[in-house]
Amino acid sequence: MKTPRPTTIVDAPRLSRKLGVDLVLASEIHQYTGSFKFRAAHNVASNVKQSHVITASSGNFGQAIAYACSLVKKRCTVVMPATAPKIKVDAVREYGAEVDLVDVTKKGRLERLAELAKEFPDAYVASPYDDAFVIEGNASLARELMALDLDLDFIIAPIGGGGLTSGLVKGVKQSGKKTQVLAAEPLLSNDAAESFRAGHIVTLPNESTTIADGARVLRIGDRNWEILSEGLAGVIEVTEEQIKEAVRLLFALANLKAEPTGALALGAVLAEPDRLKGKRVCCVISGGNADPAFYAKLVEGI
Amino acid sequence: MKTPRPTTIVDAPRLSRKLGVDLVLASEIHQYTGSFKFRAAHNVASNVKQSHVITASSGNFGQAIAYACSLVKKRCTVVMPATAPKIKVDAVREYGAEVDLVDVTKKGRLERLAELAKEFPDAYVASPYDDAFVIEGNASLARELMALDLDLDFIIAPIGGGGLTSGLVKGVKQSGKKTQVLAAEPLLSNDAAESFRAGHIVTLPNESTTIADGARVLRIGDRNWEILSEGLAGVIEVTEEQIKEAVRLLFALANLKAEPTGALALGAVLAEPDRLKGKRVCCVISGGNADPAFYAKLVEGI
Repeated sequence: MKTPRPTTIVDAPRLSRKLGVDLVLASEIHQYTGSFKFRAAHNVASNVKQSHVITASSGNFGQAIAYACSLVKKRCTVVMPATAPKIKVDAVREYGAEVDLVDVTKKGRLERLAELAKEFPDAYVASPYDDAFVIEGNASLARELMALDLDLDFIIAPIGGGGLTSGLVKGVKQSGKKTQVLAAEPLLSNDAAESFRAGHIVTLPNESTTIADGARVLRIGDRNWEILSEGLAGVIEVTEEQIKEAVRLLFALANLKAEPTGALALGAVLAEPDRLKGKRVCCVISGGNADPAFYAKLVEGI
Repeated sequence: MKTPRPTTIVDAPRLSRKLGVDLVLASEIHQYTGSFKFRAAHNVASNVKQSHVITASSGNFGQAIAYACSLVKKRCTVVMPATAPKIKVDAVREYGAEVDLVDVTKKGRLERLAELAKEFPDAYVASPYDDAFVIEGNASLARELMALDLDLDFIIAPIGGGGLTSGLVKGVKQSGKKTQVLAAEPLLSNDAAESFRAGHIVTLPNESTTIADGARVLRIGDRNWEILSEGLAGVIEVTEEQIKEAVRLLFALANLKAEPTGALALGAVLAEPDRLKGKRVCCVISGGNADPAFYAKLVEGI
């Protein structure tokens, strides 16, 4: 049975020097299906007793759960908006899942998910973040990093629903080390930052248009908030220009093809250089499934 | 002391399926300085007794030897054409070498190299390929691959002067395994293929304009030919269009940012699909230092 592959540690001395930060990059770009989401999906697929898993995802979790289910020979249904790029729909299908396309002008994705849950009462409905198996699966990344004894002051990772960061907080805590976990969030979709300022979960009124599409969620999950509100060291808000610059820097000085969400952690270093100057910082580059045309436009500006 | 980092093995199931080949990618994109050349450079810098190393390179060997020398506190001089892109000159300087710019309309690079060798009689003049330390350094990649027991039918790697392929042939031979080594060469710069057809080293009349700039050499090195003429299983000639398509496929289906020379081995699979169909093939993705503008143009066509 295929288990998640170890993260790829990338040294980037020129990038470290440029930013004045002692950087370590933990790249999940070569994780199976191209993002850290396989860690969570693998843990869900191999641990739930149900033989059918249903989820709603237009992004990396859809591909990850499709592949993870195919490895353990479980049925998988992924609800996607009919407007999702064909390349993403094809990827989920190629990894072995059924795609349920929903016309989101007529019916919400979560509404359709609820319908399917009723239609298949024996299926497991998986949230991409608000799920104990998801959080535990993502914690494996922190356990790996802690085992490498990299002597990290900070781990920075992107935040959307909070699945990755809550897993990291949990994994670091288990290790007993003093490394702090910071979340990197698009300023345009800053529900996590707002939640921390308010002291309770804040829900955004509309889905954001940030280029970091993996972070376009309305609110943090409940299970995630429970862990993050206790253990997260802070949220850094990252502008769209900083996200773009981070994608470019990863290309030019670290040879990494990151998707915008995957570059958020490095964007956070650009956003708060003083806080991180001289520190030993691990940026989690969470995924690499970038849209080619959009990526080309970013890179030609280097 | 920093030693070469292990190669990054990348599974690419969607790419394997598309090409009908059981592919393993051995990526040297995250090797120090962004290409396999650090293996050779590290072996040169740490083994020669001289405290000053001189070479001529406008590409990856220049950066690699600059960094390798800086690690062992040796002086390093890299001869580069005055027309070399500033980004490449800066990289060599950032890695700690002195850059000797030569106006190639007035004086050849090798002529200038000979002048410097005379000026510094105590320096070691390193060829990027025709050098026993270089070949031995590159052999480390084969030893790693063989130790992983991947059960490979073929290893395919790019050929320019023959430094990498001769190292691989040597390393595979030491292992006693039956894996065959194939060289991938741009059709536009096919001196190796011509040499194999002729049974002796063939020199091209002019430097090629292939986009695989790491393979723009006039002829294979003598030490390299000695090994390759005995042990190489063949040379596959790759068209410019196949090189471009290989860069695109690595981007889209393997999340790898390869430079054109680095994509040659996958281009060889596109060039001779029948020979490789159903085989277990390791493509060495030799480097990732792609020019941003050129890369953007390739990728926007996906």
